[in-house]
Amino acid sequence: MDQLTLSINSVWVMICAILVIFMQAGFALLEAGSTRMKNAGHVAGKQMLSFSICALAFWAVGYGVTFGNGNAFAGLEGWFLDLPKEKGALPLEITFLFQLSFVAVSLSIAWGGFAERAKLGVYVIFGALYTMLIYPLVGHWIWGGGWLSKLGAQDFAGSTVVHLQGGIAALVATLLLGPRIGKFNSNGTPNAILGHNQVYTVLGTLIIWLGWFGFNPGSTLSAEDGFFGYVALTTNLAAAAGALAALGTARLVVGKADIPMMLNGVLAGLVAITAACAFVEPWAAVLVGVIAGSLTVFTALYFERKGIDDPIYAFSVHGIAGIWGTLSTGLFASPRLVEKTGVGKAGLFYGGGLDQLGVQAVSILAAGIYVAIASFVILWVLKKWMGLRVSEEDEVMGLDLSEHGSYGYPEQLVNPTTQKMDSRVS
Amino acid sequence: MDQLTLSINSVWVMICAILVIFMQAGFALLEAGSTRMKNAGHVAGKQMLSFSICALAFWAVGYGVTFGNGNAFAGLEGWFLDLPKEKGALPLEITFLFQLSFVAVSLSIAWGGFAERAKLGVYVIFGALYTMLIYPLVGHWIWGGGWLSKLGAQDFAGSTVVHLQGGIAALVATLLLGPRIGKFNSNGTPNAILGHNQVYTVLGTLIIWLGWFGFNPGSTLSAEDGFFGYVALTTNLAAAAGALAALGTARLVVGKADIPMMLNGVLAGLVAITAACAFVEPWAAVLVGVIAGSLTVFTALYFERKGIDDPIYAFSVHGIAGIWGTLSTGLFASPRLVEKTGVGKAGLFYGGGLDQLGVQAVSILAAGIYVAIASFVILWVLKKWMGLRVSEEDEVMGLDLSEHGSYGYPEQLVNPTTQKMDSRVS
Amino acid sequence: MDQLTLSINSVWVMICAILVIFMQAGFALLEAGSTRMKNAGHVAGKQMLSFSICALAFWAVGYGVTFGNGNAFAGLEGWFLDLPKEKGALPLEITFLFQLSFVAVSLSIAWGGFAERAKLGVYVIFGALYTMLIYPLVGHWIWGGGWLSKLGAQDFAGSTVVHLQGGIAALVATLLLGPRIGKFNSNGTPNAILGHNQVYTVLGTLIIWLGWFGFNPGSTLSAEDGFFGYVALTTNLAAAAGALAALGTARLVVGKADIPMMLNGVLAGLVAITAACAFVEPWAAVLVGVIAGSLTVFTALYFERKGIDDPIYAFSVHGIAGIWGTLSTGLFASPRLVEKTGVGKAGLFYGGGLDQLGVQAVSILAAGIYVAIASFVILWVLKKWMGLRVSEEDEVMGLDLSEHGSYGYPEQLVNPTTQKMDSRVS
Repeated sequence: MDQLTLSINSVWVMICAILVIFMQAGFALLEAGSTRMKNAGHVAGKQMLSFSICALAFWAVGYGVTFGNGNAFAGLEGWFLDLPKEKGALPLEITFLFQLSFVAVSLSIAWGGFAERAKLGVYVIFGALYTMLIYPLVGHWIWGGGWLSKLGAQDFAGSTVVHLQGGIAALVATLLLGPRIGKFNSNGTPNAILGHNQVYTVLGTLIIWLGWFGFNPGSTLSAEDGFFGYVALTTNLAAAAGALAALGTARLVVGKADIPMMLNGVLAGLVAITAACAFVEPWAAVLVGVIAGSLTVFTALYFERKGIDDPIYAFSVHGIAGIWGTLSTGLFASPRLVEKTGVGKAGLFYGGGLDQLGVQAVSILAAGIYVAIASFVILWVLKKWMGLRVSEEDEVMGLDLSEHGSYGYPEQLVNPTTQKMDSRVS
Repeated sequence: MDQLTLSINSVWVMICAILVIFMQAGFALLEAGSTRMKNAGHVAGKQMLSFSICALAFWAVGYGVTFGNGNAFAGLEGWFLDLPKEKGALPLEITFLFQLSFVAVSLSIAWGGFAERAKLGVYVIFGALYTMLIYPLVGHWIWGGGWLSKLGAQDFAGSTVVHLQGGIAALVATLLLGPRIGKFNSNGTPNAILGHNQVYTVLGTLIIWLGWFGFNPGSTLSAEDGFFGYVALTTNLAAAAGALAALGTARLVVGKADIPMMLNGVLAGLVAITAACAFVEPWAAVLVGVIAGSLTVFTALYFERKGIDDPIYAFSVHGIAGIWGTLSTGLFASPRLVEKTGVGKAGLFYGGGLDQLGVQAVSILAAGIYVAIASFVILWVLKKWMGLRVSEEDEVMGLDLSEHGSYGYPEQLVNPTTQKMDSRVS
Repeated sequence: MDQLTLSINSVWVMICAILVIFMQAGFALLEAGSTRMKNAGHVAGKQMLSFSICALAFWAVGYGVTFGNGNAFAGLEGWFLDLPKEKGALPLEITFLFQLSFVAVSLSIAWGGFAERAKLGVYVIFGALYTMLIYPLVGHWIWGGGWLSKLGAQDFAGSTVVHLQGGIAALVATLLLGPRIGKFNSNGTPNAILGHNQVYTVLGTLIIWLGWFGFNPGSTLSAEDGFFGYVALTTNLAAAAGALAALGTARLVVGKADIPMMLNGVLAGLVAITAACAFVEPWAAVLVGVIAGSLTVFTALYFERKGIDDPIYAFSVHGIAGIWGTLSTGLFASPRLVEKTGVGKAGLFYGGGLDQLGVQAVSILAAGIYVAIASFVILWVLKKWMGLRVSEEDEVMGLDLSEHGSYGYPEQLVNPTTQKMDSRVS
C-alpha cells in the first residue's frame, strides 16, 4: 500500500477507534440511567474503571493473545505490543486502539450483568481476566487466524466476538450473583425495578448508535473504495428497524410504547447487524433489525419470568441478538458481498445451502460454551474466595455509599446512617 | 476524480454525516431540558423515534424525491436508493447518510412545535410524511436541480431547506395544537414554563454546535482544497457572535443574563450562517450572527406576547434566523466567494444590486408557503381523524405516563393515579 | 507538500479541532457535576460564554499574538487572521480552529477557580484578557517561535502552555476570591462540598478523555506517517494509569474508592502526558500517568488542608500534573523520539544529563511566573473596580438566581425569596 493510501486508512481507523471509545460514555449513561439513583455514581464511575483496566490489560497481554502469532487457539507473542512492524500495514498503535475499543465494549456488556449488587473488587479482577484471557481467545479464533477463521466464520465486526461474549458473561454473572433484593416476590413474580433517568438512557443509546458508525464501518480497516459507506448504511437501517420493531412489539405485547424497550430494540438491531453488515443487502439489513428488535422484547420478558434478573438486559440485547445476527449471514449473505469480503459462502436464501449456516452455528456454540465456562470458573472462584455480592444492608443503602463513600447525588438522597443529606459532610 | 481524492472526500463526508447525526443527541437534550420533568422520558425518547422513522422513510422514498431525476418540482426515481452509480462520485450510501442527517435535523425542529401535548401517533404519521413528501420537495427545488437552483438560490447548507422548513412546520403545529395548559392566563398574559434542566440544554446546544462543524463544512462535499476550513471558521464566528448578542440583548431587554436566551442565540447564529457560510467574509459572519442572536430574543418575546406557545422557540430560532440567514447572502455575498462556489451573484453591499436578494426572497416565500400549506393539510386531517392532542388529564399528568406508561424519572415524580412513586411497580 | 497530503492533513487536523472543541462539553459537565444544584445552570451556561468569548477574542487578537511574526516575546501581526497564505501549509482557518480549541481548554481550566462565587462580569472581562494577552504570550514563547522554543523546550501539546497556565490562573483566582461560604470551619478545618451529580462528572471526564485524542495526536499536525497513532497510544496509557493510580491512592490514603479522585486521576494522567506524549516510550507513559494520578490525590488534600478552596481542583489537576508532565520529558525523553520530533534533547534516564530537565524547569518557571503575575494584576484591578465576588446572600441563594434570574433546576429547588418553586413563574 502506498503512503497516501496508508495515511487515509490510518485517519479513518483512528477516527473509528475514537468513535467506538465514545461508546464508553454511551454505556455509562445507559447503565446509570437504567438503574437506581442510589447506585448512579458507582454505575457511571465503574465505566471509567472498566476502560482503564482494559486499556492496560489489553496492551500488556490481551492484544498478543488475540492477534499475535501462535496456534489455532491462542496468540503467543506481542506482550506490551512488542510485535514486528509490518510493511504497508496500518500503524500497530492504531490497530491496537481500534481493537481495544472493541474489547472495552465487550467488557462493558459483561459488567452489565453485575449491576447494583456486585463488589467493586470483583469488577476489577474479573475485568482484568476477561480482557486478558476470555475475550482474546475467541477473538483469536475468529479474527486472529485461529480455527474458526479457517472454517470461514462470518463475523464482520463482532456479533459473536464482542456481543455474544459480553452477553454470556453477563448472564453467568447475573446467575451467580442472584437477583437484586426486591426484584422477585416470594411467589416468584417479578417487580419492575425502573431505571431512574430515561434522558440518560436515550442519550446513552444515541451515543452508542453513533459509536457504531465506527464499530462496523471501521471494521473495513480501509477507506479505499468507500465500502465503509455501504456498511454504515446497512448498520443504520438495522438500528432504525430495530427501534420501530421493538416499540411496536412492546405496544402489542405489554400494551405500552415502552421507551426502554425501544432503546433495547435499537441496540439489538445494531448487535445483530454487526456480524452481517458487510454480507447482506439493505432489505435484509432491515429484516435483521426487525427480527432483532422484536426478539429482544420477547426474550427480555421471558428471562424475567424465568426468575433471571438481568438488570440492563445484557443477555437479551447482546446475547440473543448476537446469536441471531451471527446466524443471519447463514441465511442472507449475498454472493456479491461474500465475494467482495472474501469470507465464507453465500447464505441459504441465495442458494448457498446450509454450509454457512452450519459454520455460523459452530462459531456461536464454540464461543458461547468457552465464555460461559471461563466466566463461570472465574466468578465461582471469586465467590468462594471473597464473595461476589455486597451485604444486604449495603445493597439497600446503595453502592455509591457502600463502595465509594458518598452518593452520586448527595443533594437528592438521604444517607440512611446519618438520616441527613451528605451534600455537605465534614 | 482519482481514487485517492475520492477516498479522502468519502472519509470527510462520512465523518460530517456522523457529526450531524450526533445533533440528534443535541436535540434530545435541548428539548428535554427545555420542557418539564413529567415529559422528559417522552421528549427524549421521541428523538430516537424521529431518527428511526427518518432513516427508513428517507431511504425508501425521500432521497429519491429530493435527488432523483424528475422535473423542476420533484425527483421521480431512486426508491430504496436504487440509483445508477456515477463514476467518480462519492459512494451513494455516504451521500445518503449525509443527506439523511439533514432531514433528521429538520424533522427534529418541526417536532419541537408539538412538545408536551401531542399524541405519539401524530408524531409517527407526521414524521413519515414530512420525511417523504414535505422536506424532499423543497430540497429538490434548491439542491436537487429543481427550479430554485436554476434561479441561483444561495442556500449553502440549508437555512431554508433544513431550518426554515422545520421552523414553519413547528409553527403550524403549535398553532393547530394550541398552547399548553397554563401557558396563558385568562387575560392572555403569558406564564413562563421553565425547562427543567439547564445542564441538559447547555450540553445539547454544545453538541449541536459541534454537529454544525459537519453540517456546514461538510456541505462542501470535498476536502480537496481545504475550503471546508473557511466554512468552519465563518460558522464558528457566527455562533459565538450569536451567543454574546443574545445574552447582551436579553440583559438589556428583559433585565437578566438569561441562559436559555443565550443558547437560542448560539442556535440562531448557526442557523443564519448556514445559508451564508460559504458566501460571506468573516466580518459579515460575525454580523450575521449578531443580528440573528438579537432577533431571536425579540421574536421569542413577540410571539409569546401574541399568544403563540412555541415550547422550544423553534420558529424564532430556526424560522426567523433561517429567513435572516437566507436573506443575508443577498446583502453580503462576496464576489470572490460567489465565484468560488459558482452559485448566484454578489450581494447588495458588494455592488450586486437587488438581484440576489430577490432570488433569496423568492426561495423563502416558495419554501415557506409550501411547507406551511403541506404541514397544515396533514395536521388538519390528523386533527379531524384522530385528534392531535392528548386529553387535558393526560397533559397534566405528563406524557411519560400517558404515552409510555412510566415516568422518565420514576424516583423523582409521584404518579398522580397511585399517589406513589413508580420507582418500583409490580 | 502535495495537494493530496495536504487534504489528508487538513481533514485530520480539522477533526482533531472538533474533538478538542467537544472538550467544552466535557468541562461543562465536569464542573457542573462537581458543584451544587443551585449553581448548575450558571456553571454549565458559562462554558458557552467562555467558548464564545474565546472564539471571537482569539480570532481578533490572540492568534496573532501567539503565532504572528514579532519578537521573542510576542507576535505582532495577524489581527482578525490577516496573515499571508503560506504555500503548502495547512489552511490558516483550520490551524486557527485547532489552536482556538486549545486556548478554550485553558480558559475553561482557569474559570474553574472562580466557581460558585464569582460575578458574571468578572468572567467576561478576565476571559477576554486571558485569551488576548495571557495565554498567547506563553504560547508564543513555546510554540510561536519565541525564546523558550529557541531553548528547545519540549511541550508537545501543552502541559505548560495550556494546562499549567490554566491551573495557575485558577489558583490566583481562588486565592483572590477566597473560599466558598461553608468550606472551612472557624478552626480552619475543611468541609467537603460535594458535587451534585457524579453521572455528569463521569460523562464529562469521558468526553474530555475522548477530546484528548484530538489534543495530543492532533498536535502532530500531520497524518502522513501515522505517528499520531503512537501519540494516541501513550496518551491513552497515561490516562488509564492515572485513573487506577488515583483510585488506589485514594483507597489507601482516605480509605475509600473515591470516584471524583479517580476522575481527577484520569485528567492528571492526561495533563502530564500532554507534554511528553511524543517524547517518551509507552512504559514511561504509564509511569508518567501513575505518578500524576497519585500526585493529584495528595496535592488536592494538601491544598485543602492549607485553606485553599479550589472547587474543581484545577490547580492540583492541571497545575501540578502540568509541572510534572513538563518535567517528565527531562527524565524520560527517548533519543529516537527526540530525533523524530526534532525538539530538545534526550532525558536524564537516557544519558541526556540534566540539560533538558533544566530547560523544562525554565519553561515552567517562566510560564508560571508570567501567568501568576498577569492574572493577579487583572483580577486585583477588577476586585478594586467592581468586586470579584457576589454578595453573601447571593452566594447562599445560588448563582443561577443571582446572576441569571432562574434556577437551572426550577422543579427541584425552592426559590428562597418566594419560598416556592419557580417551575412556573409569571
